[in-house]
Amino acid sequence: MALTREQRDEIAAQRDMRAETRRAIAPGLEARLYEVIPVLDHGFVRAIDYMGDDEAIVQSARVSYGRGTKAARSDEGLIRYLMRHWHSTPFEMCEIKLHVKLPIFIARQWIRHRTANVNEYSARYSILDKEYYIPAAEHLAAQSDTNRQGRGDVLSGEEAQRVLDLLRGDAERTYAHYEEMLTEDEGKAGLSRELARMNLTLNTYTQWYWKTDLHNLFHFLRLRADAHAQYEIRVYAEAICELTKAWVPMAYGAFEDYRLGAVTLSGPATDVVRRMIAGEAVTQETSGLSAGEWREVVASLGLA
Amino acid sequence: MALTREQRDEIAAQRDMRAETRRAIAPGLEARLYEVIPVLDHGFVRAIDYMGDDEAIVQSARVSYGRGTKAARSDEGLIRYLMRHWHSTPFEMCEIKLHVKLPIFIARQWIRHRTANVNEYSARYSILDKEYYIPAAEHLAAQSDTNRQGRGDVLSGEEAQRVLDLLRGDAERTYAHYEEMLTEDEGKAGLSRELARMNLTLNTYTQWYWKTDLHNLFHFLRLRADAHAQYEIRVYAEAICELTKAWVPMAYGAFEDYRLGAVTLSGPATDVVRRMIAGEAVTQETSGLSAGEWREVVASLGLA
Amino acid sequence: MALTREQRDEIAAQRDMRAETRRAIAPGLEARLYEVIPVLDHGFVRAIDYMGDDEAIVQSARVSYGRGTKAARSDEGLIRYLMRHWHSTPFEMCEIKLHVKLPIFIARQWIRHRTANVNEYSARYSILDKEYYIPAAEHLAAQSDTNRQGRGDVLSGEEAQRVLDLLRGDAERTYAHYEEMLTEDEGKAGLSRELARMNLTLNTYTQWYWKTDLHNLFHFLRLRADAHAQYEIRVYAEAICELTKAWVPMAYGAFEDYRLGAVTLSGPATDVVRRMIAGEAVTQETSGLSAGEWREVVASLGLA
Amino acid sequence: MALTREQRDEIAAQRDMRAETRRAIAPGLEARLYEVIPVLDHGFVRAIDYMGDDEAIVQSARVSYGRGTKAARSDEGLIRYLMRHWHSTPFEMCEIKLHVKLPIFIARQWIRHRTANVNEYSARYSILDKEYYIPAAEHLAAQSDTNRQGRGDVLSGEEAQRVLDLLRGDAERTYAHYEEMLTEDEGKAGLSRELARMNLTLNTYTQWYWKTDLHNLFHFLRLRADAHAQYEIRVYAEAICELTKAWVPMAYGAFEDYRLGAVTLSGPATDVVRRMIAGEAVTQETSGLSAGEWREVVASLGLA
Repeated sequence: MALTREQRDEIAAQRDMRAETRRAIAPGLEARLYEVIPVLDHGFVRAIDYMGDDEAIVQSARVSYGRGTKAARSDEGLIRYLMRHWHSTPFEMCEIKLHVKLPIFIARQWIRHRTANVNEYSARYSILDKEYYIPAAEHLAAQSDTNRQGRGDVLSGEEAQRVLDLLRGDAERTYAHYEEMLTEDEGKAGLSRELARMNLTLNTYTQWYWKTDLHNLFHFLRLRADAHAQYEIRVYAEAICELTKAWVPMAYGAFEDYRLGAVTLSGPATDVVRRMIAGEAVTQETSGLSAGEWREVVASLGLA
Repeated sequence: MALTREQRDEIAAQRDMRAETRRAIAPGLEARLYEVIPVLDHGFVRAIDYMGDDEAIVQSARVSYGRGTKAARSDEGLIRYLMRHWHSTPFEMCEIKLHVKLPIFIARQWIRHRTANVNEYSARYSILDKEYYIPAAEHLAAQSDTNRQGRGDVLSGEEAQRVLDLLRGDAERTYAHYEEMLTEDEGKAGLSRELARMNLTLNTYTQWYWKTDLHNLFHFLRLRADAHAQYEIRVYAEAICELTKAWVPMAYGAFEDYRLGAVTLSGPATDVVRRMIAGEAVTQETSGLSAGEWREVVASLGLA
Repeated sequence: MALTREQRDEIAAQRDMRAETRRAIAPGLEARLYEVIPVLDHGFVRAIDYMGDDEAIVQSARVSYGRGTKAARSDEGLIRYLMRHWHSTPFEMCEIKLHVKLPIFIARQWIRHRTANVNEYSARYSILDKEYYIPAAEHLAAQSDTNRQGRGDVLSGEEAQRVLDLLRGDAERTYAHYEEMLTEDEGKAGLSRELARMNLTLNTYTQWYWKTDLHNLFHFLRLRADAHAQYEIRVYAEAICELTKAWVPMAYGAFEDYRLGAVTLSGPATDVVRRMIAGEAVTQETSGLSAGEWREVVASLGLA
Repeated sequence: MALTREQRDEIAAQRDMRAETRRAIAPGLEARLYEVIPVLDHGFVRAIDYMGDDEAIVQSARVSYGRGTKAARSDEGLIRYLMRHWHSTPFEMCEIKLHVKLPIFIARQWIRHRTANVNEYSARYSILDKEYYIPAAEHLAAQSDTNRQGRGDVLSGEEAQRVLDLLRGDAERTYAHYEEMLTEDEGKAGLSRELARMNLTLNTYTQWYWKTDLHNLFHFLRLRADAHAQYEIRVYAEAICELTKAWVPMAYGAFEDYRLGAVTLSGPATDVVRRMIAGEAVTQETSGLSAGEWREVVASLGLA
């Protein structure tokens, strides 16, 4: 990702500004505000603004008049209780705004999370920069044999080289033609932007401001920081995990324990676990579970 | 509204705190943060937190890297353009959190606005205070003769006094019984809170933290600060209008011109206006509009 | 619940109507359409309309051109897979509309589920009937000693009788005064409806049309059919569970196994279970879990 | 758009099926259910399912027990009143499900409407067909000189031909390379689908099931059937307008008059109109309106 000098200066200028506020502040996130966190080859995530901190969660849950005098210890206990018992509204009382640059095919996955506010750079109004995503060699994965929407081994040798050449060549050529269609030089009228953009490939980068509350952010992170998420969105989720940990460390800790690292057992699977704890050597056949669910239970409990 | 000394102290303590932030600040709202704005006889609105300012709207619309160096003049022009053309996403990039104390029958109207986050004081978990709404004499309105959901003249004399006595007497009695049912004195078990609350009248005050974005706030204000809204919710909307004006003066100005003060004409009504401008003396009969719509058009254009 | 003869006739007439449709139909729910299912002393739930069936979930997940020729067996397998892996969008493709009559204090809990469409009977516009909820003797629960928002033993003897007398007496009196305030007899102006309603107690019945999709319905049912939900909303959730089972039996079965009967273990609790399965006799002290979480894990696995 | 024989057969089979239902039916939409309405060169819209009709709007607004015996005349009056006064909840009580095939760059505009349910064909899981959008000659518009996000004249001659050649050539080549990257022939591993898709151009067709309620559908149609919407989404909106008119003719008529054909005047513009009606010859200079708003007011009132 190459920012222009002007962009770097704008960011630095904004990071240098300080003002006094009566609002709750989250020192961990203040330190990283506006900072560019590189993701993939040209993408990034930046925290632009936030509302609330760990204490604000507690304050909302209690509908308090002030910040309260409770010990941090008891705040953390309450936050963990709220997370464990699926209380969502106190976490909705914190909000974050991010600036994200990402390939269009990832933006299309991301936007499926509807409970967020989005302002995307408009390719109807403006001309997109020539920036496209090319996977690093170690992420050039083959189709999985077992999972229709998963990845298998990494491609190698000639096949890998050929794929990279095709991706790069097509992105270069389609972008060059995009520019050619737009040009108004030499007496040309120039195709409208809203039409010309259709010639770009899906690995072209776009960018947006994306704002959501902490509850919905956790939902996004649980799905997208998961091992089954596509690598290209997972790296964004992981960068956001870091920012979230800096912002609301207590809530993030509870999220790690009760969501990210949690295991959900179906009613029948719970019976199986009960039998196992009682000492029975249960097999898939005696479990009553489908082969698929059995495999998942064994994996999630680390019994393999 | 009578705050306890402890509550007043907590609020004062929070107003006294200052911290340094890199975030955008809205000086007008900073000055009023946490302040109690009295509404009705025991209610209030307080701004607890906010995210963004007028410039943040512009910044999101442009998906900017920094705060930009544009003149305030052009920011205002863009904000007005966005409002006039029904762009909603840039306004969603600002967020506000309020603490509101309000009668339950008003809370039931308010909660119909679904695109907000709410944490209400729990009468399942806690005991409600003895605070209930009694209209001031000048708001004790009779049923409207013409509008089934509207108000007519103010009640007077014995009828007014009788109504006030009934409201006060019933609120006092039902609250006393609420307390009696809850009591665990003299060997009593005490009815559970989640059941006892059902004996309270709908003018009992509740409170909540309510958080929404600026676009949805404007939608709420357009409906609830309107002359047709019930007086008891309109006074809350008006208090929030004041806070919003202090927070994002440019956006609020655009909202006043293009929403609050705007008139929407149907296609057929637009034809009528066209004929009037051309000098024709249109009547309801010649207008082709229904009696209801004709009345509304005449009123909204001030032609009566 | 006493329906008027006119209401019963209207319902019977609607149940008698039949029309031909090309749409997917769910025979189980067709049989129960419009039927009044009594809940509490005067409440009810009625299914008014629906869209989609089990097959529609599969069809949407596959973005199919037709109904497909897949065996029901494989449809069920896919539905269970989708449920287990938290796919939400195919379940959103089914929709149900209910007519519900319920006490206001329960309506206030219910409305917190925001992803639904609601049309409530307007007490601004119309006069509410004299119908209020009085708990049956066996549900007149005392406050729980251990759970601040829970119930303990049932009240008995004089205390129970006194509570019932207070509830009934206050509901009768406040309703009588409501009518008195509204009256326009004997030269009175009559208080406006939007004000008079504030004198009613929170156990007064209201009613609404409530429409939601199957994904959000399952979320509602998971929280409200749960043993920790307040009894007075749980009975509504249970009635809706019956309707849902009749409507989409495969999806409902998956919901029962993977949501209603499921157990979620935190990361640390999963480690504890792993140690138990390996034969270790773990105690709260050696578990590393908080007392609260330990208690919950033991209970949910039935290890007590 | 070329459907396969199998797809045509599946659609025909589904259109042939009939079942009896107790639900409200909308004869106008029944007649068109499942039918393929071609849009653009390979796209389409099909109505897959619906819930409710004009009468259901009225029924919900009244929270009725039955279908009622009111005359259609009074139903229409109520529907028009509800629309004129911005009542949204009764319109939310109707729901429609569509199957849409559309170019990806249009899908990206469409998905910005968040209050809808969507199941998109997964290019992570499946291989996309070779179908891409090429504008017809008469829609190959140049960039507008005056509106940064608009279209000007149609391109002609060599420039037009060159653009079409580029669009077609790039779509063909990138699709051929997509297939080549995916292939597992000749000992190749085959790039994973979730990666290979990034090589496709944005005019590639995708498809989805899209479900929304009538209120939100009207909002979508107001923005996307508008003259300022991009042509390529407007044609979808127009096809959906036809379906909606067949489905709920009364509500659609009200929508046409009070939304599609309506004009909103700001507070200051309303003053200008008042002066014009009083006979004053107002100019932009004397109007007090900005040049932009003046131009819009003159155009919307047809005063030019």
